[in-house]
Amino acid sequence: MTSDTSLTVPTRYVETAGIRFAYRRWGTPSGVPVVFLNYFSGNLDDWDPQVTDGLAAEHDVILFDNAGVASSSGETPGTVAQMTRDTVAFCDALGLKKFNAVGFSLGGMIAQQMALDQSHRVNRVILLGTGPRGGEGMTFTELSSEERADPAQFLLATFFSPSHASQAAGRAYLKRLAARTRDRDRPVSPNTAEAQLHAIREWGAVPSSNRYATLQNLKHPTLVVHGAKDIVVQPVNAFILAQHLPDAQLIMYPDSSHGAHYQHADLFLQHAKLFLRA
Amino acid sequence: MTSDTSLTVPTRYVETAGIRFAYRRWGTPSGVPVVFLNYFSGNLDDWDPQVTDGLAAEHDVILFDNAGVASSSGETPGTVAQMTRDTVAFCDALGLKKFNAVGFSLGGMIAQQMALDQSHRVNRVILLGTGPRGGEGMTFTELSSEERADPAQFLLATFFSPSHASQAAGRAYLKRLAARTRDRDRPVSPNTAEAQLHAIREWGAVPSSNRYATLQNLKHPTLVVHGAKDIVVQPVNAFILAQHLPDAQLIMYPDSSHGAHYQHADLFLQHAKLFLRA
Repeated sequence: MTSDTSLTVPTRYVETAGIRFAYRRWGTPSGVPVVFLNYFSGNLDDWDPQVTDGLAAEHDVILFDNAGVASSSGETPGTVAQMTRDTVAFCDALGLKKFNAVGFSLGGMIAQQMALDQSHRVNRVILLGTGPRGGEGMTFTELSSEERADPAQFLLATFFSPSHASQAAGRAYLKRLAARTRDRDRPVSPNTAEAQLHAIREWGAVPSSNRYATLQNLKHPTLVVHGAKDIVVQPVNAFILAQHLPDAQLIMYPDSSHGAHYQHADLFLQHAKLFLRA
Repeated sequence: MTSDTSLTVPTRYVETAGIRFAYRRWGTPSGVPVVFLNYFSGNLDDWDPQVTDGLAAEHDVILFDNAGVASSSGETPGTVAQMTRDTVAFCDALGLKKFNAVGFSLGGMIAQQMALDQSHRVNRVILLGTGPRGGEGMTFTELSSEERADPAQFLLATFFSPSHASQAAGRAYLKRLAARTRDRDRPVSPNTAEAQLHAIREWGAVPSSNRYATLQNLKHPTLVVHGAKDIVVQPVNAFILAQHLPDAQLIMYPDSSHGAHYQHADLFLQHAKLFLRA
């Protein structure tokens, strides 16, 4: 185990296929690494230290910016399929033969696609606040890349419920995100946010037939975690995942929105450890 | 902590209001006791030793036969409301000022009614394979008390999924149930089974208005556990509970039916301990 933490681990770079990927890696370098796949407009600094350091106590943890995101070079593609290929390129560059994929929201879409495309390399999957391809209300017609103007307000309004307890948890989360003061990541550019929105909407388009048919092919042990009051990705999508994936465990937290796993970070950490240990 | 286990703890009796209740109590006599509320035609021997002994390592565990059930005297009423009052009488007789309620199926209906009727006495609630009053497909028109003719076959067909893994888990569960050889409980009488069916169907009747309105009054921390392929109580009922209860955590296990918490006994035990410790 290294002495690094989420606050001190330096940002490193690896170049492949013309893209220079920014990443941070620390934790317990034994067993299968855990690769984190981030949400719309999220960068390396947006992963909750409580969660990543908690998992790093037992796992080799890897955060990265996908192509064109924040400190990574290249162009952000407009489809989940290409984002998945970019993620594969990054994993290849690090020489990861097998890994656990933790995907939040857009990252959860990539994690699903990854499990389908690179079935043999993916060990276990954790899907946070996400939904299946063509899920319920997943075209996000109300979301715009301009909502990121006030990131703190955006996060409090979408990741947390209006309740006093949830908003307090949200402020604590924002404080944890701010704790890393040096070597912070760059913000996500408007162009990247636009491309990500395009990818999310393409993923959310309801197919004309066999709506959830591909889910039966995602046979990996999967943990689906969702907020019971998620206003970004409707909770029913997590239920649909649990109904259609052959080996998915579903955990839904009360009084919580898109950031349920941050609001209930302690409990989520224990649930995730149990799942990854199995 | 006593040296009793689920296999050795003697069946005891307490009489109140003209009913002689059979019960078993063991475990760690500190903190808030955990009272188990049983399913249709279940008796004291039908609680999985792996689960009850596992919880007894941290809690004061109490199993009992409700009025008219198995070794308890009295008549089994035909409504969940009266079964709840009988349960209150039993808790009064044991002098329980506060308790955690773990209810499975019919027992989960009683646990909900108990939390509403005796709000101040109920600490935390665990709802296993159950649904809200007037839930989806909960009038059980296909269930008959005659299905109990071959209990082992009935349990394998309804508590476990058709998969090889689930059926194997079912046989292991049946073996655990058989491990107690002395002082076993009596079977549930046909009259009691008929009354329980009546109560379940009355609970399942869809009200003409405000279908799930009472759930908002059940403010206790609640853990809802369900099988993703439950053929007795449709999984959507657990999702409905999680959507309408103000403080419910939902956990759904893969490839499992009505006995999901027995199929995944180890994991359920860890999830339940985390929940009860909080």
